[in-house]
Amino acid sequence: MIVVLNPQATEEQIQHIVEKVSKLGLRANISRGTERTVIGLIGPEDVLRVTPLEVFPGVEQVIPVLAPYKLVSREFKKENSIVKINNKIKIGGPKIIMMAGPCAVESRDGLYNIAVEVKKAGATILRGGAFKPRTSPYEFQGLGEEGLKYLKEVGEKLDLAVATEVVDPRHVELVSKYADIFQIGARNMQNFSLLNEVGQTKKPVLLKRGISATIKEWLMSAEYILSKGNFDVILCERGIRTFETATRNTLDINAIPLVKQLSHLPVVVDPSHGTGRWGLVSGVSKAAVAAGCDGLIIEVHDNPEEALSDGTQSLIPENFANLMNDLEKVAQAVGRTMR
Amino acid sequence: MIVVLNPQATEEQIQHIVEKVSKLGLRANISRGTERTVIGLIGPEDVLRVTPLEVFPGVEQVIPVLAPYKLVSREFKKENSIVKINNKIKIGGPKIIMMAGPCAVESRDGLYNIAVEVKKAGATILRGGAFKPRTSPYEFQGLGEEGLKYLKEVGEKLDLAVATEVVDPRHVELVSKYADIFQIGARNMQNFSLLNEVGQTKKPVLLKRGISATIKEWLMSAEYILSKGNFDVILCERGIRTFETATRNTLDINAIPLVKQLSHLPVVVDPSHGTGRWGLVSGVSKAAVAAGCDGLIIEVHDNPEEALSDGTQSLIPENFANLMNDLEKVAQAVGRTMR
Amino acid sequence: MIVVLNPQATEEQIQHIVEKVSKLGLRANISRGTERTVIGLIGPEDVLRVTPLEVFPGVEQVIPVLAPYKLVSREFKKENSIVKINNKIKIGGPKIIMMAGPCAVESRDGLYNIAVEVKKAGATILRGGAFKPRTSPYEFQGLGEEGLKYLKEVGEKLDLAVATEVVDPRHVELVSKYADIFQIGARNMQNFSLLNEVGQTKKPVLLKRGISATIKEWLMSAEYILSKGNFDVILCERGIRTFETATRNTLDINAIPLVKQLSHLPVVVDPSHGTGRWGLVSGVSKAAVAAGCDGLIIEVHDNPEEALSDGTQSLIPENFANLMNDLEKVAQAVGRTMR
Amino acid sequence: MIVVLNPQATEEQIQHIVEKVSKLGLRANISRGTERTVIGLIGPEDVLRVTPLEVFPGVEQVIPVLAPYKLVSREFKKENSIVKINNKIKIGGPKIIMMAGPCAVESRDGLYNIAVEVKKAGATILRGGAFKPRTSPYEFQGLGEEGLKYLKEVGEKLDLAVATEVVDPRHVELVSKYADIFQIGARNMQNFSLLNEVGQTKKPVLLKRGISATIKEWLMSAEYILSKGNFDVILCERGIRTFETATRNTLDINAIPLVKQLSHLPVVVDPSHGTGRWGLVSGVSKAAVAAGCDGLIIEVHDNPEEALSDGTQSLIPENFANLMNDLEKVAQAVGRTMR
Repeated sequence: MIVVLNPQATEEQIQHIVEKVSKLGLRANISRGTERTVIGLIGPEDVLRVTPLEVFPGVEQVIPVLAPYKLVSREFKKENSIVKINNKIKIGGPKIIMMAGPCAVESRDGLYNIAVEVKKAGATILRGGAFKPRTSPYEFQGLGEEGLKYLKEVGEKLDLAVATEVVDPRHVELVSKYADIFQIGARNMQNFSLLNEVGQTKKPVLLKRGISATIKEWLMSAEYILSKGNFDVILCERGIRTFETATRNTLDINAIPLVKQLSHLPVVVDPSHGTGRWGLVSGVSKAAVAAGCDGLIIEVHDNPEEALSDGTQSLIPENFANLMNDLEKVAQAVGRTMR
Repeated sequence: MIVVLNPQATEEQIQHIVEKVSKLGLRANISRGTERTVIGLIGPEDVLRVTPLEVFPGVEQVIPVLAPYKLVSREFKKENSIVKINNKIKIGGPKIIMMAGPCAVESRDGLYNIAVEVKKAGATILRGGAFKPRTSPYEFQGLGEEGLKYLKEVGEKLDLAVATEVVDPRHVELVSKYADIFQIGARNMQNFSLLNEVGQTKKPVLLKRGISATIKEWLMSAEYILSKGNFDVILCERGIRTFETATRNTLDINAIPLVKQLSHLPVVVDPSHGTGRWGLVSGVSKAAVAAGCDGLIIEVHDNPEEALSDGTQSLIPENFANLMNDLEKVAQAVGRTMR
Repeated sequence: MIVVLNPQATEEQIQHIVEKVSKLGLRANISRGTERTVIGLIGPEDVLRVTPLEVFPGVEQVIPVLAPYKLVSREFKKENSIVKINNKIKIGGPKIIMMAGPCAVESRDGLYNIAVEVKKAGATILRGGAFKPRTSPYEFQGLGEEGLKYLKEVGEKLDLAVATEVVDPRHVELVSKYADIFQIGARNMQNFSLLNEVGQTKKPVLLKRGISATIKEWLMSAEYILSKGNFDVILCERGIRTFETATRNTLDINAIPLVKQLSHLPVVVDPSHGTGRWGLVSGVSKAAVAAGCDGLIIEVHDNPEEALSDGTQSLIPENFANLMNDLEKVAQAVGRTMR
Repeated sequence: MIVVLNPQATEEQIQHIVEKVSKLGLRANISRGTERTVIGLIGPEDVLRVTPLEVFPGVEQVIPVLAPYKLVSREFKKENSIVKINNKIKIGGPKIIMMAGPCAVESRDGLYNIAVEVKKAGATILRGGAFKPRTSPYEFQGLGEEGLKYLKEVGEKLDLAVATEVVDPRHVELVSKYADIFQIGARNMQNFSLLNEVGQTKKPVLLKRGISATIKEWLMSAEYILSKGNFDVILCERGIRTFETATRNTLDINAIPLVKQLSHLPVVVDPSHGTGRWGLVSGVSKAAVAAGCDGLIIEVHDNPEEALSDGTQSLIPENFANLMNDLEKVAQAVGRTMR
């Protein structure tokens, strides 16, 4: 932590700060410059996070030196984390994992038909929402537990792992009975009650980046889960909100290599939400693989005209199968595989 | 709803859309222009929200005509809603209501001392957090129920109503025993489980705008609460996230007159979070009153150096009292009062 | 300037940096912390701006301590600057200056009629565009020199000073013959050729903030003008681009008190562009005055239906006159006057 | 153009609008819905762009149906445009073009050394700034004409085409004598005087997207150039400004496939500015190629420690050569080549 004093700071004010930080167990290193005096604080920075040095008389600004996350950082763990979903599926290794399925589970048969197609094309994880967070109270809110049952049934029949969103801390136990991966949606990235609950389970968590979350905040939300004991966190970039309205969100491609530098956790990309337009999903999926992601999560629907949610960003099975073929080539170009 | 077709749309595709919407009980009005054909859909627009017409062959774009919210709109209710907190306090009338207090409840005595000061200066509602949503799992998370007890005790002693944040749907009943107003924080604006829970109570809800929520999304979140039966919603503008980093958030002053045009609900402004710098709170508070807000919520701490949360944006009691005097003049200039 | 080293930085790398900065005439103060070593650099920070210390081996991040602007800063000049437009009009003193007129000059008579109205209501500066920067090449681009002539003629007839936009460095001399104030539009805030040209004149410059300019960048653009010798710069907040689409821009009300803290230059607000909706201009104008601005610039048109530019954000003269009356009260509430 | 009336619109107001648009040569198609009346306007939409129908009594909103650009659109020209730089280099065909070089031209020898390296690795166009737009008036502003001479000399010696930025309409003729491609920087994307000047030349223009320009605005700026007669425009995505501060900009990967859908012009990507961190350039370059770009423009410097501009985002020649090898594989995976 570095404290920059304003030009009028008095010697008394400097001493007041030095005393304060000494009491907190830190050592102060004072540099008197020509235009500003700067105090470097040496010792565990954490104790300072709850002390608002900015309001001390004479202080102009306070600059943290360390990243606020620990367990998720590369400094904490040098090698890539590999999250094991089941005996066959691992995320974070050389194979790029494909998760696919409808936005929302609408019926048993509908889900089954889509699942057959995505399995055939090479997906290994079935995605589908049973609890749907919707902007409007008047839109389809999901089938709830019924949807969870269909997911489990279809997943077992076709030997697909199952990922589904949990939106309420009271549902964690229920969802846990049916799903292999908890999905935390963008709107809940800072729902700390929910993070604490999934952090106390032993199941992998796919943590989507909030629509306006910085990378630092996203990693801090992952830190919540790890700090509760669950290290099986998969980060998911799904686009951020910007001024651009031609696409639903702006997929932050920079985030992929950057998060791989900052953290040991695997990174998955959601080009369906990241673009909001099915016609862009193929190009952006290839980009994500080329940039180094560890997996993709893509919405597929066999009849987008009748989809109850997000039809405009869903691929039809034929396009999905073509995409898998294209991705295989890109994956190989960067030393990975898709299947 | 208006459907714009692409230039290559065939007659067959047009008929397919007309049939589809007829089945949904709507009438289609077709305008064949020189460069585009446009279909206007007449009838209840709601049935179309779940039908993704964008993916129908031949469609270029779909444009909604109506706002998606109903109960919160000025069309639904012409006159201003006045939310009654108790027998003495009403929000939405000529008197501008001041809510003040510490960011977090830290101790009984600390809270009491601050409450005495804000009451003396003219605040009628005491604010303070017992459950604190914090970006980091390592920061102070609030006193929980103990904090709620202090709030109730101090509020009763000083005849102040009490507003406090609820962050978990499982806490709604608990918080309800101690507080007069549920505060929904920015991070939880789209925590629909939580909105549904407070929507089923009879207590007023202060709904903060999400850090990257559009005004439409904010009103839709209010719609969730009203649609469950609770019409006592107070909207709170608290700054949005933009590219500017010199301030913690960018307070959206435009939102005040705009929301008053679009909705009948009262609007309160939080300049403490909206700026993140105590030195800007005074100027921006005056601006909010001049722009037509119905209340303010301001962080006050008698010892910001020791505050466990948000010390940098808290006013000391002396500055708060001066601000109340300044605000009184601005309020009168726009035909309102503060006390 | 503070240099934070990464945990693996070697002693050799530290020495390499120390040598480099010594050659630049700076002194290095090394703090060896438990997790990071930090080097404080003492001496004139400017020489470091062109040396990318970030790329030196062992460096994790480089943090500037000083603001990059000098002449525009409060540190450079404690008291408020007052910009003199002519013998009668000064911006930055107790009187809040009103600039008003049409977006674009469309005809001599049209301009005259509007000017009569705004003068009657209390404006002292006539605004109007002769060179219009338009997003589309197919839209009205302004009357050019003819428009400048009308401005000068009408201004002289009614004893109003004249402000108009200059968009091309080749026009500075021409515009200078007709106008009292150069207006630099948001799109040209970083048109450094243009800034350098107006910086070499003796006429006041109204510098609009760029649509996505940080406050720091805005002040740096002002610094360009001052550094060329022209200290008569008026800053103009006109709204920034955010994710919100309900308004054309988001007026940054925080910027008003913040810029008054950081700089001695006067600050004017443009609520017409800041909102893009005439129905919000009144509320936001009052807010700007309450927040401490030194002037307002407002679009007025007597027949918005026929306006060739920005009709949707223009006030009609009657509304403008009412606004002036409202503003007078708010101005008095904060110790200022409008007329 | 579609006009949505508000619920209180009278028959008289509707007739007023119908008459107005009839005078403009358009036909009005009126749909009377249950909640809103909607008027579809049939005929050339352009005449409406200068008529602010939003301010007509009874109007709630006006919705354009057509994109405002014409010459740049896929509708205007179905097949991809191929921009010919010289007899050997074409942008927009199967070969992906690499432009590389230092941010700023610093000296003849320095430029030559870098140029030798990028040529060896496979670049065919040398980039380098002679006129540098800098945020601060105190930073290195480029060598001016001297820099242009070095560029031409080095380019001819090594058989590299040359791209360099032009920042002032008065310099277009000068730059034209030395460079093969005009580069219009992000800050000048809406410098319409400059666009008009380069639009009147016969040289290819690389048009960078503004830091906060929507895709629509970017295409409109290209439209300026085409409308003046110069169809040799290359679009360049270089990152947009968002709330994220971990990277200098957010490269908008979605824009690549989207612009290829909307326009026939070639698209080049600048990962150096798009990320601002050399450690991310490789990953993001591969992503851009996978997403379908037609070229890349990358900053390379043989001694970033001494670079006078943007050292932190420059690759050293060795990393650049490695990147070219990696890109070759990705290009082949998507059916393209790099060399």
